[in-house]
Amino acid sequence: MQRTDFAAMTCPIARGLDRVGAWWSILILRDAFAGLTKFDEFQKSLGIAPGMLTRRLDDLVAAGLLERRVYCARPRRASYHLTAPGRDFRPVLIALMAWGNRHFAPEGPSVAIVEAATGIPAEPMLIDRRTGRPLAAPDYALAPGPGATPASRARLARGTTLLDAVAA
Amino acid sequence: MQRTDFAAMTCPIARGLDRVGAWWSILILRDAFAGLTKFDEFQKSLGIAPGMLTRRLDDLVAAGLLERRVYCARPRRASYHLTAPGRDFRPVLIALMAWGNRHFAPEGPSVAIVEAATGIPAEPMLIDRRTGRPLAAPDYALAPGPGATPASRARLARGTTLLDAVAA
Repeated sequence: MQRTDFAAMTCPIARGLDRVGAWWSILILRDAFAGLTKFDEFQKSLGIAPGMLTRRLDDLVAAGLLERRVYCARPRRASYHLTAPGRDFRPVLIALMAWGNRHFAPEGPSVAIVEAATGIPAEPMLIDRRTGRPLAAPDYALAPGPGATPASRARLARGTTLLDAVAA
Repeated sequence: MQRTDFAAMTCPIARGLDRVGAWWSILILRDAFAGLTKFDEFQKSLGIAPGMLTRRLDDLVAAGLLERRVYCARPRRASYHLTAPGRDFRPVLIALMAWGNRHFAPEGPSVAIVEAATGIPAEPMLIDRRTGRPLAAPDYALAPGPGATPASRARLARGTTLLDAVAA
């Protein structure tokens, strides 16, 4: 039921969420970036029930985020590989990692992005690739696109603080 | 059950996901950035069952991402406002929005981030605030932090493609 509701929304955030389906799916994508490809590897890493893992992998394949490759016919064995849209989920994972480290790692991060040469932790920040400027108001704004519905236009008309500059 | 599993993980992505709890919670945070504060406003925007909305708002308050302010004692009425950690979820939402627009908006984006002066759509990209350089290998790497467990060290030792440079 919930998935249907989300699919009907035009909001790109809702649609993106619909494609990754559930928390497990995001952690499966995380592990795919770590090089895991086989069912047993995902299961060991996640401690997930086999039936649940099967469903999540099927969903990710159906959503076009993982590609299934059969590497052994008998017994049937498949591996799972990130597609281009799956690899493009990278900035979401990086942003989640940075947020989790900033707020929910009281004992210190378990893993962090660091500058390779110095080991200094990175401070992820979003910019516009074309201009190099931070994605922050008033330089940047949310605007309706060709797919905007009356509902999304109404939401936009209320304004947003999504692009308000973050305190340093 | 699932929430308990996630909370026990040290991975910052898993912990971050645990704090936002469910898809609905992410859309509630989205709407909070759009200026919504009242129960009825969230309900109308999301088309969510009242009981579910109550639970999700309670969870977000308990997780420290929303603050509840009682503005009327009788009848009891409360409004909900982003906390500092809640506002800091911004980059995750922006990254999700960009991903949803790139891959799941065949009719064109319903909403997009644009440069205010020109209307040109932004291309969000993550950089290191300190150096201004893209968060990409080989300049940047994942490294274990003080909170790393043997499991997280083992995962890191396998390498990652999370920071592999994206094709332009």
